[in-house]
Amino acid sequence: MRTSPLLEQLIDALRCLPGVGPKSAQRMAFHLLQRERQGGLKLADTLNRAMTDIGHCQECRTFTEDDVCHICKNPKRRENGQLCVVESPADISAVEATGMFSGRYFVLMGHLSPLDGIGPGDIGLDIFDYRLQQGDITEVILATNPTVEGEATAHYIADLCQAHQVSASRIAHGVPVGGELELVDGTTLSHSLLGRQRIN
Amino acid sequence: MRTSPLLEQLIDALRCLPGVGPKSAQRMAFHLLQRERQGGLKLADTLNRAMTDIGHCQECRTFTEDDVCHICKNPKRRENGQLCVVESPADISAVEATGMFSGRYFVLMGHLSPLDGIGPGDIGLDIFDYRLQQGDITEVILATNPTVEGEATAHYIADLCQAHQVSASRIAHGVPVGGELELVDGTTLSHSLLGRQRIN
Ligand SMILES: [Zn+2]
Ligand SMILES: [Zn+2]
Repeated sequence: MRTSPLLEQLIDALRCLPGVGPKSAQRMAFHLLQRERQGGLKLADTLNRAMTDIGHCQECRTFTEDDVCHICKNPKRRENGQLCVVESPADISAVEATGMFSGRYFVLMGHLSPLDGIGPGDIGLDIFDYRLQQGDITEVILATNPTVEGEATAHYIADLCQAHQVSASRIAHGVPVGGELELVDGTTLSHSLLGRQRIN
Repeated sequence: MRTSPLLEQLIDALRCLPGVGPKSAQRMAFHLLQRERQGGLKLADTLNRAMTDIGHCQECRTFTEDDVCHICKNPKRRENGQLCVVESPADISAVEATGMFSGRYFVLMGHLSPLDGIGPGDIGLDIFDYRLQQGDITEVILATNPTVEGEATAHYIADLCQAHQVSASRIAHGVPVGGELELVDGTTLSHSLLGRQRIN
């Protein structure tokens, strides 16, 4: 935009969003200026607060602005002693949407990847180990992605569970192999939760 | 996100962006939180300043944070006496990218649309009329979109020009009929500028 350096900066800044190239960034900027100034101001404010205030839950590691997230705080979610291990916060949304799970979560924020130097400590397995020691978890449901890395991570965690005499299960096949958990439809994911099989 | 109301607000606020549904808003929010906090903060700040400070150029009506935009301010752009009339600020970028035009612009911010109650005053033609009266414009190049409304608007403006004895031309066909000017490739647009024909 030769007519406005600030507009140029806005188009540039919008490109930090995933999947937004120069053309769609321009389209977004014009749309906001022409039709959505209030929405744009609200987005600016929310974005600022979210980037500043949202950290990780001390218990499950998911994103939250509190010390402990709303799910971990809820006493009802402790009753069945189940802990569902997922790779990312988006996977929590996917599992919650099935309505089939009422326990708590543990979010790895990734998966084991020795080639990239990502070991157990990098995906919070020290915290996970500590949680197993508390003795209130009776079953760990491994809902990592059905990829090579996800499977390897699930096996590693299953071994940890065995060391603490905690039962571990893997969500059933039904989720397409090689896919991403958050893209799976709710019905398939419900089936895979119901059909989970013990692996130790 | 049952784990974080603020994250839920962020996902919701991102949906003011055009073409962003609930799924991609979630994806954007997680991406920013996980990998782009600095980019997210910068976007928040730029967005806030842009929504607050960017108005319209007093001369050409395009978006700018100044009273008069950088193109209108440039004395070199007054030399050839040409004024290119476009529907939106994005069209200025498209024409500028051809490198074939060195005059000034006038941005309608829309087109005539009697059925929607959009008349000459709504697309700035009162300001346009006033500019024609200044006597420094020798040719008006009509680069509205090659749609029914764009053609009708071009004809209306051509009549205004005739009333002021200012020559008016329409960019040549070559831009696909029924398309949007900003989506046309640079070569096609260059040809359509060179092949423009007088209509009065
Ligand atoms: Zn939590
Ligand atoms: Zn201007």
